[in-house]
Amino acid sequence: MRSDPTTRTRILATARELFHGRSYADVGIKEICDLAGVQKGSFYHFFPSKQDLAMAVIDDMADDWAHGFVAEAFDHQLPPLERLEYMIDAAYYWQKAAKDIEGRMPGCLFGNLALEISTRDEVLRAKLNAVFDKASARFHETLDEAVELGAIAPLDTAATAQAMLAFLEGVILLAKSRNDPEVVRVLGPAIKTIRIESRRES
Amino acid sequence: MRSDPTTRTRILATARELFHGRSYADVGIKEICDLAGVQKGSFYHFFPSKQDLAMAVIDDMADDWAHGFVAEAFDHQLPPLERLEYMIDAAYYWQKAAKDIEGRMPGCLFGNLALEISTRDEVLRAKLNAVFDKASARFHETLDEAVELGAIAPLDTAATAQAMLAFLEGVILLAKSRNDPEVVRVLGPAIKTIRIESRRES
Repeated sequence: MRSDPTTRTRILATARELFHGRSYADVGIKEICDLAGVQKGSFYHFFPSKQDLAMAVIDDMADDWAHGFVAEAFDHQLPPLERLEYMIDAAYYWQKAAKDIEGRMPGCLFGNLALEISTRDEVLRAKLNAVFDKASARFHETLDEAVELGAIAPLDTAATAQAMLAFLEGVILLAKSRNDPEVVRVLGPAIKTIRIESRRES
Repeated sequence: MRSDPTTRTRILATARELFHGRSYADVGIKEICDLAGVQKGSFYHFFPSKQDLAMAVIDDMADDWAHGFVAEAFDHQLPPLERLEYMIDAAYYWQKAAKDIEGRMPGCLFGNLALEISTRDEVLRAKLNAVFDKASARFHETLDEAVELGAIAPLDTAATAQAMLAFLEGVILLAKSRNDPEVVRVLGPAIKTIRIESRRES
């Protein structure tokens, strides 16, 4: 049994594409092994279970995004509100590129998995919530900065950050259902209008 | 083989609960038959395929909602903006009740299915889009009325209606991922702040 690093990478890349393009339950370990060109024994050497594989897929994707367009969008050099626009633009172009290649808009891997497994897998659910927490923290610091700079009126930045993340996920959900990335381009910019007011001090 | 109407109803109710509580792919026809107490032959008499069953489940749920809390929320007797609040309240109490019984927040059946099957099943995808169109039409007429009554400043009511539907789905997605209906209660009311401006006439 070979166990070179490229075997693991190949399994991971194959699983990520299949989970994202279809669903978690719809893709079997045998199919992943066949497409990745690895033996089942080799698979289990790296990933004792399908759940372990999904954990690694989530890490892999979150890592790519954190160092890719999320880092670009939330660049501190950009004025805060432009970061939100950049984020929406990036989501649009990413989904559009995926659809141009596959014919189908895959949506957000994290949102897809969250709706598919949240009632059934506490380990994956916790993992996905950690990803959502990080995303929400980016929105939160952006809003704090926007308020500080006077770019927006004071508001409950923590709650509004969560609402913005929810909106982003919802827009991608609707766009996936329509199989139309333009939904992200048209509806997405409204993310800047979402506001949850601070509770009045008593 | 019996084919009384209650057999069909029993299959439908069982499938709806299982699809909603878990996922489409995760639930097999055998399990549905076993739990509903029907023979496979009887199942196929009513539903030639699992896809046919899912179509009927979507109709059944959409119908219940249209005549239940959606009708109540979008009651023309209510001022338009209160309809949005009612809709959020209804979503919150529905999810909370489901979680209190099952321990798990099931989310929105339509959103769940949309993310699970949109890349793979054009028939179910079209069906779900018809449900989303109807929901969006309710938001649209509510916004038109709100603008007419001067309750909100003029805006692109069609696009904002879509954005509000997306937000509702996104909030339920995040709440399901957190397994916490309070997310709907806290973030949901921000639906009223979402605005997409009309394009300037040229």
